[in-house]
Amino acid sequence: MSADTTRPESGLSRRKLLGAAGLGAIAAGAAGAGAGYAAAGGSDSAPVIDKDELPTPFEGAHQAGIVTPAQDRLYFAALDLTTESREELVALLQEWTAAARQMTQGNDVGEFGAVAGSPFAPPEDTGEALGLPPSGLTITVGFGRSMFVDAKGKARFGLDGQLPDRLKDLPLFIGDRLDPAVSNGDLAIQACANDPQVAVHAVRNLVRIAFGRASVRYSQMGFGRTSSTSTAQATPRNLFGFKDGTANIKVEERMDVEKFVWVHDDDGPEWLVGGSYLVTRKIDMRIEIWDREPLEGQEAIIGRTKGSGGPLSGGDEFDELDFKAEGDGGDPAIGEVAHVRLAHPDFNKGAKLLRRGYNFVDGSNGLGQLSAGLFFIAYQRDPESQFVRIQKSLAGSKNDVLNEYIVHVSSGLFACPPGVGAKGYWGEGLFA
Amino acid sequence: MSADTTRPESGLSRRKLLGAAGLGAIAAGAAGAGAGYAAAGGSDSAPVIDKDELPTPFEGAHQAGIVTPAQDRLYFAALDLTTESREELVALLQEWTAAARQMTQGNDVGEFGAVAGSPFAPPEDTGEALGLPPSGLTITVGFGRSMFVDAKGKARFGLDGQLPDRLKDLPLFIGDRLDPAVSNGDLAIQACANDPQVAVHAVRNLVRIAFGRASVRYSQMGFGRTSSTSTAQATPRNLFGFKDGTANIKVEERMDVEKFVWVHDDDGPEWLVGGSYLVTRKIDMRIEIWDREPLEGQEAIIGRTKGSGGPLSGGDEFDELDFKAEGDGGDPAIGEVAHVRLAHPDFNKGAKLLRRGYNFVDGSNGLGQLSAGLFFIAYQRDPESQFVRIQKSLAGSKNDVLNEYIVHVSSGLFACPPGVGAKGYWGEGLFA
Repeated sequence: MSADTTRPESGLSRRKLLGAAGLGAIAAGAAGAGAGYAAAGGSDSAPVIDKDELPTPFEGAHQAGIVTPAQDRLYFAALDLTTESREELVALLQEWTAAARQMTQGNDVGEFGAVAGSPFAPPEDTGEALGLPPSGLTITVGFGRSMFVDAKGKARFGLDGQLPDRLKDLPLFIGDRLDPAVSNGDLAIQACANDPQVAVHAVRNLVRIAFGRASVRYSQMGFGRTSSTSTAQATPRNLFGFKDGTANIKVEERMDVEKFVWVHDDDGPEWLVGGSYLVTRKIDMRIEIWDREPLEGQEAIIGRTKGSGGPLSGGDEFDELDFKAEGDGGDPAIGEVAHVRLAHPDFNKGAKLLRRGYNFVDGSNGLGQLSAGLFFIAYQRDPESQFVRIQKSLAGSKNDVLNEYIVHVSSGLFACPPGVGAKGYWGEGLFA
Repeated sequence: MSADTTRPESGLSRRKLLGAAGLGAIAAGAAGAGAGYAAAGGSDSAPVIDKDELPTPFEGAHQAGIVTPAQDRLYFAALDLTTESREELVALLQEWTAAARQMTQGNDVGEFGAVAGSPFAPPEDTGEALGLPPSGLTITVGFGRSMFVDAKGKARFGLDGQLPDRLKDLPLFIGDRLDPAVSNGDLAIQACANDPQVAVHAVRNLVRIAFGRASVRYSQMGFGRTSSTSTAQATPRNLFGFKDGTANIKVEERMDVEKFVWVHDDDGPEWLVGGSYLVTRKIDMRIEIWDREPLEGQEAIIGRTKGSGGPLSGGDEFDELDFKAEGDGGDPAIGEVAHVRLAHPDFNKGAKLLRRGYNFVDGSNGLGQLSAGLFFIAYQRDPESQFVRIQKSLAGSKNDVLNEYIVHVSSGLFACPPGVGAKGYWGEGLFA
């Protein structure tokens, strides 16, 4: 009855199927040449290629979605394994890798995709991304401590020997009001794309594949990126109206990426070398209270101007912070408890993070207030000496006046394995 | 201390302030010539103008955001008035109109905006849209029945004489599971934009202006449009993976727009002529159940193919539905209870709607299932003979097998006043 159930070749393009073959061919060529982001600009004579037509390469030494220039939208999910079978876990990771390989390239999941195969079987792909380009989609997975050992320290999946020393529960910070129902998890999926429909499609299809083996513990939409991870990107604003992530590690800063993001040989364990630790924190913002704070107060709390994002010590956005500069009356121009001071490497033994968080709005809270804030995401080589150190500096109302306006309600720590080659699967080093 | 607190002229552009003056000028010129959407394509010699740089005109006989080609993202809010003062209600509507006039043109709210004015006062604008273009923003307001009379039928604001006959509570349809906390409301704000940050900024600033006079009852983010309202737009897909809104009224279909969308002189009341009735329905989708349905079953339920969106009676997406065509075995190709049949004008005394709904994902429900679906939005001249008639046809599990996969959890009906000129304000006809 359906006009489009003819059997297509495998690696089924969502666009090609629907007649946009030309664009697909251009996109594949450009991506192969490593021009994934730059080609969007075009020149006077060249055709303008929408950057969303260009897939982000899936294979590599590291997973995509970490130093990849931050896409506009996020859908994040944490899952709990409902199986205790090692074989089923391996199969799940293999199937996820295969599906991610397809979806990130703008293809349907499975051999037949959304609209082909047997009309009497559920479609392999759920179909809501049909006709949409790759949209910069990256899918990044991580493993929680609870995948290796249960709450009593008992091994799961025979993986206790592979548990990284650094994959410890994060400490409870002053002011934390964490909800366990939306914290941690055995597995994490971070899907980032410029089209939220494409990010939703990715998580939905991985969750569907996991049926019977893992189920979603919580998930979170993010609508606006709050950090740049490339010097080519303009710095976006968080829901306090301030530019966020000016001093973030950028992919072009190769020394910092090596030093602060990737797990090295001597960090161990071996299966995680080339991977990274992912920290997530859902931070509710008390938007209405913040909006009643005078401009000068807001700027003093952050330590930057709201307009240009320049430091209160003077200059423009990317100028150095001068913590010794004096403002009116001889006080430091950047206050002793200003956010940028407390978070700065100079006051945290040099620690830096690669952040790629997103603004979220979950509607309203029944008191007429926005349920909104920042879904903080940071990648790092060592949580203890990076996120934990910086967050200890920030947490506590004595230290950071910003804490009057925010509350952390969810927390997660995941070890993200390295990238895969043409045949590998995520986390295969765990099962070698 | 802030470098950018110099006093700017009024009508403060978010881009101009930050140095993008040239683009602003181009955008204003093109929009004035009515080329709001078309200019984005560009020619070989002309500079390519991003369509998001072009503001949607605010003034006109009708409110923008109804027949305006549907933008990509939605933020919707319903508010309850906390004042009983007619003067305060008038002032609120005047202030909202002024702020919407500024924001839809890419300007900050207020005389001084986000980063100027007194450093000792809260900024007039919350600032998270600084540097962002107009992004196609439209702001559309509506009035609920409860603004005119309370639950006991007692007048509010002296407006009982202005209550439109057609602004009745919607009936409870078979299968409805409405939550009053996220239904109805005195006032509705629909903010649509191509950038969700711009839509969020718009609602947030209107809510802030309302402080002490109205507060948010509920709000809803929508990430992907599910209807086209212009023949220039590709038909998007809902979370069932099907194209949605193929047969929707398009702005180019002037006869239908006149006949089915705008309130006419003889419909009354006078203050509403040129306005429209807005129906909202939050429709939860049982995504996981749907995804287990075979392709043929999904297509039979909808009455179209999943790939091209062509009718099961044959042909491509925009071909006519042939309800008499026979399929295998002599049954109708488009089944007796297929969604497209039950919703079709031929079976609803010719009734049509102008829909501009959005997909939503509110995270997960604690059972591992997506909290996701469709935030249905439809505009019409007469709810009783349009939405109510069609929904009665669709509701009830006997009639529409789709109802096994969806449940309506919220409902709203609002009378949207006509547009305003250079000096008017929303709903001023109510207070003449």
